[in-house]
Amino acid sequence: MSRFYSYKNASLVPYTPGEQPKALNVTKLNTNENPFPPSEKALAFAREHIRPLNLYPEIQCIDVRRKLAELHGVDADNIVLGNGSDELLNFAFMTFCDDKKQAAFPSISYGFYPVYADLNHVPYTEIPLREDFSVAPEDYFDLGKNIFIANPNAPTGLALTRAQVEEILKHNRDSVAVIDEAYVDFGGETCIPLIKDYDNLLVIQTFSKSRSMAGARLGFAAGDKALIDDLNTIKYSTNPYNVNSMTLALGLGVLLDEETTKANCRTVMDNRAYTTAALEELGFTVLPSCSNFIFTVSDRITSLELYTKLKERGVLIRRFDKAGIETWSRITIGTREQMDILLKNIREILEELP
Amino acid sequence: MSRFYSYKNASLVPYTPGEQPKALNVTKLNTNENPFPPSEKALAFAREHIRPLNLYPEIQCIDVRRKLAELHGVDADNIVLGNGSDELLNFAFMTFCDDKKQAAFPSISYGFYPVYADLNHVPYTEIPLREDFSVAPEDYFDLGKNIFIANPNAPTGLALTRAQVEEILKHNRDSVAVIDEAYVDFGGETCIPLIKDYDNLLVIQTFSKSRSMAGARLGFAAGDKALIDDLNTIKYSTNPYNVNSMTLALGLGVLLDEETTKANCRTVMDNRAYTTAALEELGFTVLPSCSNFIFTVSDRITSLELYTKLKERGVLIRRFDKAGIETWSRITIGTREQMDILLKNIREILEELP
Repeated sequence: MSRFYSYKNASLVPYTPGEQPKALNVTKLNTNENPFPPSEKALAFAREHIRPLNLYPEIQCIDVRRKLAELHGVDADNIVLGNGSDELLNFAFMTFCDDKKQAAFPSISYGFYPVYADLNHVPYTEIPLREDFSVAPEDYFDLGKNIFIANPNAPTGLALTRAQVEEILKHNRDSVAVIDEAYVDFGGETCIPLIKDYDNLLVIQTFSKSRSMAGARLGFAAGDKALIDDLNTIKYSTNPYNVNSMTLALGLGVLLDEETTKANCRTVMDNRAYTTAALEELGFTVLPSCSNFIFTVSDRITSLELYTKLKERGVLIRRFDKAGIETWSRITIGTREQMDILLKNIREILEELP
Repeated sequence: MSRFYSYKNASLVPYTPGEQPKALNVTKLNTNENPFPPSEKALAFAREHIRPLNLYPEIQCIDVRRKLAELHGVDADNIVLGNGSDELLNFAFMTFCDDKKQAAFPSISYGFYPVYADLNHVPYTEIPLREDFSVAPEDYFDLGKNIFIANPNAPTGLALTRAQVEEILKHNRDSVAVIDEAYVDFGGETCIPLIKDYDNLLVIQTFSKSRSMAGARLGFAAGDKALIDDLNTIKYSTNPYNVNSMTLALGLGVLLDEETTKANCRTVMDNRAYTTAALEELGFTVLPSCSNFIFTVSDRITSLELYTKLKERGVLIRRFDKAGIETWSRITIGTREQMDILLKNIREILEELP
């Protein structure tokens, strides 16, 4: 910390992203990326439709917003885009939360929520998961706080139904409920249809997972027009050209090829079932996942040992030094080939145990 | 404003970007873009070197940071990248300013500084320009505040020498001076060499102007490693993957083709001299510009009338409803052809005046 650093952020602890090795010769199952690149069709569309790069991006991002609105049966005015969904999550904290209107989120969830709360000096309440790692809707009723829930949740992969989220909305009419649907396309149920009936609902999605665009950075928020207008006030006070022209073109290209997105999601879900069954056969417990990762534990090997030994063998998975989940491993679902490499290595590691 | 909007930002007025018409059939001289696209050489490099887009970007952005460091004779640890330089300007406010360490900047300068101050609840002092629109270094001595100076300044185009900036640094050892060099490559003198001697200097540059990448969003900050570490704390608490893989590849490609950047800057400077002479011949006063725009006034026509009549004719320039400069026009320097269209239209407009 330099002598110029503001006292306001003295205790701020940044988010720790998963390892991102520069080399590509590892089996990378640690940051929930899609194993498939954007389709040739989407890339070809993008190459043809990039606005001249010497000009600023089209600031309204209207083409992508219109297409998203069409896909979800809402209006373009219900949509705002971000430089990844992380930016929009931060915007939501900036826009709606303060010392009076505080935040609440599950104690075990996306690690960025407490960082955004701290960054914005928003006091927050962490609500424990139930013993089975589930989010219990009634634990979020009438809190008088803005609520942030990842659905499906990370790193558990467990999901609430839309009806369960609706119960939370009904019991928090005067608070914003931010439903972070980063993983929804792998078996969850989106709550975007509810934005017409609930002016307190903000749904945030990303193109990083199901749409294979982690490297291009694109996310969106959907909500009542008044909420979106508020977010735009913050966006235009922060970084109006937050989404670049290449990403806009690729985002539109990907949206025009929903078949590939759906096929890739199906493959990932098939590989998830395959991997879950194989791990259970090896004695692992695996939570029923609605996402592109699984959360698993074994009493034969600690998560630290599994992580370390897999890393030595060129396979990256993720674990968390956090009370309650420190014995668990989070494994991204990749291609069938990647899953076979993972399983082969786990089998060998287990066999070598004393 | 929705009923959920935080009271903290109730008085926040967003930045107003210049008009960005979606159509490309206008002579666009209003947002200081480079008239030339990135070179084929740079684009070809980018296409060959984009990290697979389904993976997150290389989080350290090390290749671009190393190349920038090499070009400027500093270390990669002295550099951090942003999603455009706007993001880094906001990071500087977030990182170094607060209610105790306030901000100071010229009263006429980049319109985003007061917005960032308000967004971050940082009280600020606006220091008037001198009568000739210049920034007087001695007005910034020993203020006890962090200082933000655009150099060259916008919308005036006037520049301080490096020696003048050094005087400001010497007289503010306990404050950060942020020198925003968005336009430096068009005739200014960069202060990056001073970061070795002044731990209170942060230089911010953009790839949007001289490097033709407004649509790709890339900026960087250079400073003492301790300042950069502080900015990284904020970056990793906000949006760690703030620069996408396509932009990183293109940024490196552009840096590997400095010849084109320099040739484009020379052309713009030649066109600036040409346009300045032509406007002076028409009775306009033009400030001596070190940037890719000129700031000009005429007593024959108001800036509003000039702006409106040019817009009717498909030529966009920029004016500001701000006391002290409301009679002036800011005109981006484009290609020789664009300048001839501008001048032809101005001549016709003047001839049609009653």
